[in-house]
Amino acid sequence: MNGRSIEDIKIGDQASFQKTISETDVYMYAGLSGDINPAHINEEFMKKTIFKGRIVHGMLTAGLVSAVLGNQLPGPGTIYLGQDLKFKAPVRFGDTIKATVTVSEKIDEKNRIICDTVCTNQEGTVVLTGTATVMPPKR
Amino acid sequence: MNGRSIEDIKIGDQASFQKTISETDVYMYAGLSGDINPAHINEEFMKKTIFKGRIVHGMLTAGLVSAVLGNQLPGPGTIYLGQDLKFKAPVRFGDTIKATVTVSEKIDEKNRIICDTVCTNQEGTVVLTGTATVMPPKR
Amino acid sequence: MNGRSIEDIKIGDQASFQKTISETDVYMYAGLSGDINPAHINEEFMKKTIFKGRIVHGMLTAGLVSAVLGNQLPGPGTIYLGQDLKFKAPVRFGDTIKATVTVSEKIDEKNRIICDTVCTNQEGTVVLTGTATVMPPKR
Amino acid sequence: MNGRSIEDIKIGDQASFQKTISETDVYMYAGLSGDINPAHINEEFMKKTIFKGRIVHGMLTAGLVSAVLGNQLPGPGTIYLGQDLKFKAPVRFGDTIKATVTVSEKIDEKNRIICDTVCTNQEGTVVLTGTATVMPPKR
Repeated sequence: MNGRSIEDIKIGDQASFQKTISETDVYMYAGLSGDINPAHINEEFMKKTIFKGRIVHGMLTAGLVSAVLGNQLPGPGTIYLGQDLKFKAPVRFGDTIKATVTVSEKIDEKNRIICDTVCTNQEGTVVLTGTATVMPPKR
Repeated sequence: MNGRSIEDIKIGDQASFQKTISETDVYMYAGLSGDINPAHINEEFMKKTIFKGRIVHGMLTAGLVSAVLGNQLPGPGTIYLGQDLKFKAPVRFGDTIKATVTVSEKIDEKNRIICDTVCTNQEGTVVLTGTATVMPPKR
Repeated sequence: MNGRSIEDIKIGDQASFQKTISETDVYMYAGLSGDINPAHINEEFMKKTIFKGRIVHGMLTAGLVSAVLGNQLPGPGTIYLGQDLKFKAPVRFGDTIKATVTVSEKIDEKNRIICDTVCTNQEGTVVLTGTATVMPPKR
Repeated sequence: MNGRSIEDIKIGDQASFQKTISETDVYMYAGLSGDINPAHINEEFMKKTIFKGRIVHGMLTAGLVSAVLGNQLPGPGTIYLGQDLKFKAPVRFGDTIKATVTVSEKIDEKNRIICDTVCTNQEGTVVLTGTATVMPPKR
């Protein structure tokens, strides 16, 4: 049931998850989070901006990073301690986003790992960068 | 339509948003993000852990911070540049979480503001801390 | 309230239900089931396959068969005992699927009926075949 | 990206997925499938039956089997050809269901595998049995 413990993880280990983000995802996320910024749900307003249309919540894109950590690396049993996020480019409805997690540091005595977290779109443009700090499950 | 521009914001300005996070929110978020970690959707597994039951995705709690920034301070038209998150305590199904954003720094020449972001539960326990970097809408 | 009892059902009786399956249906079903196979949520990945795009979960299409049994034939009160499914052709987002249930056998002493179950798309292509075994409600 | 090809799978290989099925899951599934049988959405009606309350759609429980096949064994790229299902016991709201897939047969020349599929609840009661036929992704 449990994911990988710190003993089973080495620096450079990598995992990723990819999803096409739909209008549905954005609209449901607006409801869950309460973030009803017109940037995400008002096409007419956004058509007149430099974005030329609605964009995906940055924090929803960030959720794909959480999916990699919770499902795969380290996987089930992981405790999420922190995440730094930089939103580098807009994500549009229908973009296919790939979240990649790469282990960059291990702090064995604290049972912590630090990971680089990057999201790219279908054209390879980096849309999000960051760093995750997690506790892998114990053996 | 637009929120507050940097000229209308001063250090110390504060806004908040509060929501009771339901099982529905968590289950729908699991679908949106693809994060199907048993921590969030498997009560039997979690009963045997120190958490004693399912917990809310940290990134879903973080969405309440995004809601304050996008709805209120600065509000519509805000561009989200970055967010640091520290997950300090578990959020349980049914917890009422208050996200508070406080302006801590203004970088006028770059049209950026830095905000402290804190989430507390109904007992006042801090569950999330962090810092947001945003561009307020132009006048 | 109750549907039809076995006395009210005869071999050859037929009922159907038709629905256009949306991207929303598929995305929500991915969340409910936990089935985040890229076949269903990753357009870029699927464009390069023989499917040329995302397809609907076979088990979601099968749900339309369940709808006919539970709503109409036999209807409310039916107990679903078993279902065989053969997925014959891909179902695409936006396809309008018709599920048809036809009573093929009655086992009165056990209060069971066997039904042929077929799903077709808007072009008449058979996408799913199978057999359902149910207990109709008692009179 | 792809899951395991037939060369990487051997008879006896096993994977599982576990989820606590919520009222939300059932209600959303009723909407997706159109299966509005009172068995699933009418507590008053069901209180008076031998079930003593609403039960989960059998086909929703079956979705957890699909999740194991599509996410893990064989995983991404799998084509679902068929599934036999026997619903053995009712699943109640809040039950934690474990779907387990075990490879029982390989038909290498057709690139097919046959798997036993079983779902159990938190008490170990078997609620669903069956057999899946799938094509693993090619190497």
